Amino acid sequence: STSLFFVMAAVSHVSPLNQLVTPLLTDMYQISMAYAYWRAGRHNERATFELFFRKNPFSGEYVIFTGIDQVILHLRSFKFSAGDIEYLKSLPSLANADPAFFEYLAGLDCSSVVVDAMRDGSIAFPRVTLIRVQGPLIIGQLLETTLLNLVNFPSLIATNAARMRLAAGPDKTLLEFGLRRAQGPDGGISASRYAYVGGFDGTSNVIAGKCTGIPVSGTHAHAFVQSHTGWGDIKDPMLSGVNFVERIKELRSSKPAWENTNESELVAFVAYAQSFPNGFLALIDTYDTMSSGVENFVIVALALTELNFKPLGIRLDSGDLAYLSKEVRRRMDEAADEFNCAHLRDCKVVASNDINESVLLSLNNQGHAIDAFGIGTHLVTCQAQPALGCVYKLVDVEGTARIKLSQDIAKVMIPGDKSAYRLLDKKGQPLLDLLTRRHEPAPEPGKRVLCRHPFEENKRANVIPTTVIPLLETIWDGPNQTSNDPVTPKDAREFALAAVKTIRSDIIRPLNPTPYKVSVSSSLYSFLHEMWQDNMPIRELE
Amino acid sequence: STSLFFVMAAVSHVSPLNQLVTPLLTDMYQISMAYAYWRAGRHNERATFELFFRKNPFSGEYVIFTGIDQVILHLRSFKFSAGDIEYLKSLPSLANADPAFFEYLAGLDCSSVVVDAMRDGSIAFPRVTLIRVQGPLIIGQLLETTLLNLVNFPSLIATNAARMRLAAGPDKTLLEFGLRRAQGPDGGISASRYAYVGGFDGTSNVIAGKCTGIPVSGTHAHAFVQSHTGWGDIKDPMLSGVNFVERIKELRSSKPAWENTNESELVAFVAYAQSFPNGFLALIDTYDTMSSGVENFVIVALALTELNFKPLGIRLDSGDLAYLSKEVRRRMDEAADEFNCAHLRDCKVVASNDINESVLLSLNNQGHAIDAFGIGTHLVTCQAQPALGCVYKLVDVEGTARIKLSQDIAKVMIPGDKSAYRLLDKKGQPLLDLLTRRHEPAPEPGKRVLCRHPFEENKRANVIPTTVIPLLETIWDGPNQTSNDPVTPKDAREFALAAVKTIRSDIIRPLNPTPYKVSVSSSLYSFLHEMWQDNMPIRELE
Repeated sequence: STSLFFVMAAVSHVSPLNQLVTPLLTDMYQISMAYAYWRAGRHNERATFELFFRKNPFSGEYVIFTGIDQVILHLRSFKFSAGDIEYLKSLPSLANADPAFFEYLAGLDCSSVVVDAMRDGSIAFPRVTLIRVQGPLIIGQLLETTLLNLVNFPSLIATNAARMRLAAGPDKTLLEFGLRRAQGPDGGISASRYAYVGGFDGTSNVIAGKCTGIPVSGTHAHAFVQSHTGWGDIKDPMLSGVNFVERIKELRSSKPAWENTNESELVAFVAYAQSFPNGFLALIDTYDTMSSGVENFVIVALALTELNFKPLGIRLDSGDLAYLSKEVRRRMDEAADEFNCAHLRDCKVVASNDINESVLLSLNNQGHAIDAFGIGTHLVTCQAQPALGCVYKLVDVEGTARIKLSQDIAKVMIPGDKSAYRLLDKKGQPLLDLLTRRHEPAPEPGKRVLCRHPFEENKRANVIPTTVIPLLETIWDGPNQTSNDPVTPKDAREFALAAVKTIRSDIIRPLNPTPYKVSVSSSLYSFLHEMWQDNMPIRELE
Repeated sequence: STSLFFVMAAVSHVSPLNQLVTPLLTDMYQISMAYAYWRAGRHNERATFELFFRKNPFSGEYVIFTGIDQVILHLRSFKFSAGDIEYLKSLPSLANADPAFFEYLAGLDCSSVVVDAMRDGSIAFPRVTLIRVQGPLIIGQLLETTLLNLVNFPSLIATNAARMRLAAGPDKTLLEFGLRRAQGPDGGISASRYAYVGGFDGTSNVIAGKCTGIPVSGTHAHAFVQSHTGWGDIKDPMLSGVNFVERIKELRSSKPAWENTNESELVAFVAYAQSFPNGFLALIDTYDTMSSGVENFVIVALALTELNFKPLGIRLDSGDLAYLSKEVRRRMDEAADEFNCAHLRDCKVVASNDINESVLLSLNNQGHAIDAFGIGTHLVTCQAQPALGCVYKLVDVEGTARIKLSQDIAKVMIPGDKSAYRLLDKKGQPLLDLLTRRHEPAPEPGKRVLCRHPFEENKRANVIPTTVIPLLETIWDGPNQTSNDPVTPKDAREFALAAVKTIRSDIIRPLNPTPYKVSVSSSLYSFLHEMWQDNMPIRELE
């Protein structure tokens, strides 16, 4: 599977996974603005754009930032095709545009752009720059929508997955099962990939496995059980040289309670076991979990262990999962004694069916015997909050800072080209993130720095950090023709899991977490507030 | 744009829009089951699968069914590539699989499958078959996840859009603006396409326009305004042979209140107007809507109309949209009188910023002056309910009906191969949908038919329909090598808008709507309940 990943990665180093990720994957107004900049001769002015979010999702206090892999591939392959240009020319709103503009567009690429970003899999907080794009105004503008699209959902899903990982605990197996309910084909594929980054163990989604190298798993569905009607469905009764069907029938008749299980279900389990004797995991709730499914599982598992196979366990897909998992566990453990088959104690309980973070927390409170969770709809569509609100703002043109005001203070942006640092305390834990003006000297370990709340003048603190981590690194340097290769999902996952561990537990707890501090330097504070005053018109009250 | 659509349609007749829509866009267990069927020699048994949903989304009582276009293209192009097969062979769970299975898989296509479906853009109700797949058990199984993925989100978004269309009223312009917050690239593209099917007028998403032929629109963003600092940004002051900048400055100085507007905003509006003199729509809330934005708009609009251009209007993206739209409308109308410029009365008010169905309903209650809505996040991620729960169930194998039971009555499926009809009343309005067993004679206009609730024995009614509409039509006939071409978004949209109009208003109202009746024939009722009894194990209570 490692070698496989590199095979796929080689492909994906060329262009984004979805071939529709092109310069046209954008809002029309970006093209209109591009034309207006070009027509005014301003398209090559040096601009800085910053991508960040304002508010944490899921009533939490953090985000796992990811999706940078596809951003790099988009920068690498950014080019309007001849067909793209023809399409743009055909649009009524560009009917009167100067034809030379289209020639100019056709020649554009990202070779004059420098992009810095927070590392893939980082834990991130509101207002701190996640991506900084510097280069010609026109390209910065043309990248906006695509970059937002490429990081918003990945970061949302990774955050959702990280929350579920924290809720389930480090020892449970978490599998993403949501493709059928996902928002479109790559809604599903992104969910698989970035849920893995957030801490899941694998997915049911085969193409996500193929394209991103993450582990896939899956056994059988209700339809498989329903498709069987009787022993006639099994043409060849043998397994490992013995008459397996005969042995199953013998076992079944040895215990009166077993004669009342659903026979077609038993047949289905036998057929599945014959195909996957080492991968026997039975879905036991097609007809009735306790009176049929678990008993049929025990019969087949006993016969398999007699042949030295190791059945894996059962899956529950309905009902009261706390209660049923304990009952099923109890039944398997009892059967281990009853039939002197210790392996039944090692068989796992997998649960699926409408699981979300609250269900995981509630199961912990109730007590349960589930070893692995298959999580679909709530994970992949982020039902609790299906969008992350990353924004992308122009902060500087030709060395002059820009601001956008708003009646809503939360929407006022911090102007100007900035640097971002994470300051650690004596325990090595992140204490706060600090935004400074770009030309300011970086904060230094052991030296006191004044950190201010960006909007509330009385909230400020002196901090002496033990370690200062610059949060942005260059991932794409067009002029020097260098760029990072996309981070593998495995590396991003390890980075994310480690990052979450460094954060104070009250910041990552599921309910009413403590906000993490994001501050500005004294110089940036003054600059922001002066610029705000300068640009806000003074109203005339009459 | 019509000719363009056909250009694109020719491309999309070959394969799905997203090249990752392949047989691997599925859950791993489908492949495991395929192997088990194949190994048991059962893969060619004739099976019938039905796709339907159990519960309407958004607390409503209907769904707009769509997405069939990509389903047809998936059936057309269904083929495991050599790379797909290599990937499957590499999976640990298939390590011991018979190599002949992979050769078999590599040869599979949909030529032995017949698919019937409800027409693209239909209004649909719970439990009624949306898609029926008949053919070899193995292919029916391998299509499950992909078909669900291809119709679940499209139908959800079309339904969401239809609800917003009903809330906004037929005369408002509705534009989809959500690409940046969508769940992945084709989460965005699907949202654009299927919001149009549900009744939107267009999208900001350029590649959706290119690939599906739907109208695109868009003007400028806050960044464009921010990027301007002063008159020096405009190198060429001319427009249509006059010194436009000079005229703007003259106008501005003619009124004291105008000297206090944000100058860089005015410069941005002028630059935009020079590029799009016939498409001038100004975003007026970058600095302050009433004291700066709307006044700067009036100045530029006056100068444009002097040159016989027709400015389009303004866009609001923040604040109290009911209040601001009325104030802006009042201001434009006053300015029409003040400057004797009647065209200002025709200028439109476009509003965006966190609009959803509830906001639309609330704006109606408050009164507003908005002509067009740009709707993003809530529309494209279906924030109110981000997943539709379509399921795909095996109902028949080799002429024998199948059932899946559940402790939860809502999850018990209606077994067997079925037909679906819509029965109209004397006014030509749909009265109820009726499911029958496939071999039963179809209900006839003017003839009484007993329609029963599938689960509640006392709910039943005699119906004499005036018209009987069979709901399923063959869209793919593999054995006879015929298939429908994908319906254009325009045709699906017209069908959907007309379908919504035929439904009783209490069924489609936004709050506490009346459920539409979905019934079964007397014969299907008896069959369902007999089969339920037969398959449910009788518990032993001790």
